[in-house]
Amino acid sequence: MATGTATPRAARPTRRQSRGLRTREAILEQAVDIASIHGLSGLTVGSLAEALDMSKSGLFAHFGSKEDLQLATIDAARQIFVEKVTRPALAAPRGMPRLWKLIELWTGHVEARVFAGGCFFTAASFEFDSRPGPVRDRIAAVMREWIGVLTRVIQETQKAGHMNRKVDAARLAHEIHAIAIGSHWADQLLDDREAYARSRAIMREKLRGLATPKCPPLG
Amino acid sequence: MATGTATPRAARPTRRQSRGLRTREAILEQAVDIASIHGLSGLTVGSLAEALDMSKSGLFAHFGSKEDLQLATIDAARQIFVEKVTRPALAAPRGMPRLWKLIELWTGHVEARVFAGGCFFTAASFEFDSRPGPVRDRIAAVMREWIGVLTRVIQETQKAGHMNRKVDAARLAHEIHAIAIGSHWADQLLDDREAYARSRAIMREKLRGLATPKCPPLG
Repeated sequence: MATGTATPRAARPTRRQSRGLRTREAILEQAVDIASIHGLSGLTVGSLAEALDMSKSGLFAHFGSKEDLQLATIDAARQIFVEKVTRPALAAPRGMPRLWKLIELWTGHVEARVFAGGCFFTAASFEFDSRPGPVRDRIAAVMREWIGVLTRVIQETQKAGHMNRKVDAARLAHEIHAIAIGSHWADQLLDDREAYARSRAIMREKLRGLATPKCPPLG
Repeated sequence: MATGTATPRAARPTRRQSRGLRTREAILEQAVDIASIHGLSGLTVGSLAEALDMSKSGLFAHFGSKEDLQLATIDAARQIFVEKVTRPALAAPRGMPRLWKLIELWTGHVEARVFAGGCFFTAASFEFDSRPGPVRDRIAAVMREWIGVLTRVIQETQKAGHMNRKVDAARLAHEIHAIAIGSHWADQLLDDREAYARSRAIMREKLRGLATPKCPPLG
């Protein structure tokens, strides 16, 4: 599923392949941007070619069909999220510091409008949830993976003795995720400039209420 | 903004106008259904004509443009929501019973898949939040109205002495709304059949934690 920026030494690409990879990455970054505004359905080879000042046939060499392009765009958005949010958060100390870092990087990632149209995955989720097929399946797989990461980091926080062990980790992961979706909604649709400050305050209060006495203070 | 099913006596329509209104309502119900699956962008006069077995020109007599059709569809979805959720909830006794009734009818409305593709407004919100124009403005207006209703019902609950007066009503309205969006997301994208039970449990626990001793038990 990963687009694979980290290449094992043995499989290091030749210079020519490497140029190809860079081009593919640059194309996909633009694709994620367009899709965040116009939806994955609004991402056409034509609109992408125009934005990149490339020929349609040049793009078709990279992606055989609109669906291939959509799937590759989802993978690219996932890869960006892993690099900007998940990987740096997992470098924080296990327990509440890691959970809070994950929440801060994640909220900051969307708040900073890394993609022009805001949270790519929230938009893609609601766009495709009623349209069966490979695109919906790929979005759902990435989102299950993400809820899984959140759940595991919450479980680690319990094992580290930083959070009440009676808390249902999966339920809390869904609740935290919902608060985040709600803040994108209020920020993007209602132009509510308090949205992210509010969601951070809600999450902070929620986590403080579940913390044990030995939990280090939240950031 | 309302499509107006309740017509004041003095302005009662003639029989012919009335048939016209019914046809318009039937068309718009189908339009809301299509838009809930394929998005408001995917709602074309052609797809609607096919679903209704009507001619395109017959539809153009009702809606001059795709944008007119989109705006009328938003108004129709709002009207259905008012009839199924807001109005019956406002008939419940003021205070926590009314707030809980609002939450139950709202969750039930989406859970029952009144629209084929799930929550019309959540999908429309994320579809148009980055596309400036009259459609985005109309969706945002309906959503501000809804957050306003939720906020006022929470404030009434505080005035009735059923909820701690220190609670920030607008913030709680956003939090409850976010939990609901999160449950649509998990139900529709992840096929998570626990989603609505979980969101009701989260909201119930949240409200119980904020209730005063004189608050009647939640439903």
